[in-house]
Amino acid sequence: MVHPRVLRAMAHPLVGHLDPQFVQLMNEVQDLLRYVFETKNKITFPISGTGSAGMDAAICNFVEPGDPILVCVNGYFGDRICEMASRYGADLTRLDRAWGTVFQPEEIDNALKAKPAKVVMIVMAETSTGALQPLEEIAKIVHQHGALLMIDCVTSLGGMPVKIDEIGVDIAYSGTQKCLGCPPGLAPLTVNDRAIEVLHQRKTKVPSWYFDITAIEHYWGAERTYHHTAPISMNYALRESLRLVYEEGLEARYKRHRENAEYFWDGLKDIGLEPVVEHAYRLPSLTTVKVPEGVDAGQVCSRLLNEYNIEIAGGLGAFKGKVWRVGLMGYSSSKENIVLLLGALSRILKR
Amino acid sequence: MVHPRVLRAMAHPLVGHLDPQFVQLMNEVQDLLRYVFETKNKITFPISGTGSAGMDAAICNFVEPGDPILVCVNGYFGDRICEMASRYGADLTRLDRAWGTVFQPEEIDNALKAKPAKVVMIVMAETSTGALQPLEEIAKIVHQHGALLMIDCVTSLGGMPVKIDEIGVDIAYSGTQKCLGCPPGLAPLTVNDRAIEVLHQRKTKVPSWYFDITAIEHYWGAERTYHHTAPISMNYALRESLRLVYEEGLEARYKRHRENAEYFWDGLKDIGLEPVVEHAYRLPSLTTVKVPEGVDAGQVCSRLLNEYNIEIAGGLGAFKGKVWRVGLMGYSSSKENIVLLLGALSRILKR
Repeated sequence: MVHPRVLRAMAHPLVGHLDPQFVQLMNEVQDLLRYVFETKNKITFPISGTGSAGMDAAICNFVEPGDPILVCVNGYFGDRICEMASRYGADLTRLDRAWGTVFQPEEIDNALKAKPAKVVMIVMAETSTGALQPLEEIAKIVHQHGALLMIDCVTSLGGMPVKIDEIGVDIAYSGTQKCLGCPPGLAPLTVNDRAIEVLHQRKTKVPSWYFDITAIEHYWGAERTYHHTAPISMNYALRESLRLVYEEGLEARYKRHRENAEYFWDGLKDIGLEPVVEHAYRLPSLTTVKVPEGVDAGQVCSRLLNEYNIEIAGGLGAFKGKVWRVGLMGYSSSKENIVLLLGALSRILKR
Repeated sequence: MVHPRVLRAMAHPLVGHLDPQFVQLMNEVQDLLRYVFETKNKITFPISGTGSAGMDAAICNFVEPGDPILVCVNGYFGDRICEMASRYGADLTRLDRAWGTVFQPEEIDNALKAKPAKVVMIVMAETSTGALQPLEEIAKIVHQHGALLMIDCVTSLGGMPVKIDEIGVDIAYSGTQKCLGCPPGLAPLTVNDRAIEVLHQRKTKVPSWYFDITAIEHYWGAERTYHHTAPISMNYALRESLRLVYEEGLEARYKRHRENAEYFWDGLKDIGLEPVVEHAYRLPSLTTVKVPEGVDAGQVCSRLLNEYNIEIAGGLGAFKGKVWRVGLMGYSSSKENIVLLLGALSRILKR
């Protein structure tokens, strides 16, 4: 769910997308995005599409035909990155790992020793498995090999630290509808100077005009050159949701997400259920829960929705029918929601 | 501006993008889009981005490297189509005409005789010039030459007839924020069976995964296969704005737009101003007005905004500083707005 203040912002009367008031709002959105990404990157703005648009934009800007790209795959969204990168002609190396586990730095090191890459792409918070990928060591290794590090932080941004500058992430994209607590429709993106330099050395134009960062940056930059019409209302909503993040404070917000997740995991144990991912690598924002033997996963989701008005998701891809996915993000990360869900789940599973 | 019912729809609490209620809403949005496009096309849904995303999506699906494409350019957006098509490797033929004028069928015929094309791309309602392109004859000629007809109807859909099936348009895209009277953020698209057949014969994958119509159709189709997370709130708003179109009725809505436009054009004469486009080809939704000698076009826009809270736009590209662009679209197409604008304009120009 979304905070009432964010819903109210969506209903705000519109101004034009080149109106001085909207230009001021664009500055505020960018400053607040830098705050939550913990970055000083000039190129920090929302792509005008949903999370997958952010993924597509990040990839099409940094992949030229024949570019060697290393993609780490331990879930559904790593697989999607491969699909997108190969469509843009990447010379793709795919490093696979079991769903629900995370990559060790030496695996990336070995892969880059075997074949250097222009960009290493990895998912920080795998929405399909609930695994949180540590990035500090990997960032160092990627840079030692002279590559760029691109991360997917769709399900982490706003719910746990995504320290872009401190870790040394070169390119990151996210979505508004997860821990930022905003409706879906925008994809926050941040790109550092090192990556921008690489972008400016492209031999070919970015295939998608709509996603071309070097053009969009003049719209979001000081020039405000018309590129496309920004989704005005979605930007009102994003500003309001980012203001809520700022008012709560990053540390307090991360603490709330973490404490509520621990509270949920304890409660799962009480009703005989078990998370898929080991504790050290578990996402606070999204938990995958093993479906007990003999239980119809989809039926439980339907009953939760129809009888208790609670939405949890089923498994994707390799996890279909085997796990439930429970999001505790942004405004929805609360003790009330957890107690309600645990109560409803235990009642449904008993019958 | 946007109708209060549409603003209220934006603030509606969210459901999941695979929730049965949202699936029902997707059906309703598609049916209502078919109503306003006047089409039976199965593939009729909004692309999850703004109008330019619709343009990019339409082009990247129907252009493979080396494909011969004919683009008719008589304004800013025709030029943008060329830019997008050439990025996807089109073997581009560009047919130019003076801004503010429209193409004659025999020009297209001659161009296709000189060089056949896979797709002919043309702007129905040029937002930069205010010219309305007649399409009936052109559609026949394009089909005689075995090509597909793609049209840009961003500034016409919902404000004047866009009879997709009757004219025989194969591919059309639009935006929500013009005559549909919805905030920007979605791009209605419709594709007929003939074009889908061509799409299914592609030798290469569509470069952009996000814009791949053959994948998105399974999300909007009966299967509801997860593709990307649709912008939920924007779809609430689009449904509400389409319901308003349906309640008013197409004929009544077109009559309102037409009568208000005539009323505005008469009023312009009274205060000594003149439209750019000759009467027969003038858009009812957007009028370009010649800036009188010695008047600072931008300053007039600023004063209208700051003193009267009215937004009109300046000229783009070749028309920069030479024209004003006045939109009378959807909820904003009203006599009150016209009288207010004419009164404000005449006062500013007198001083």
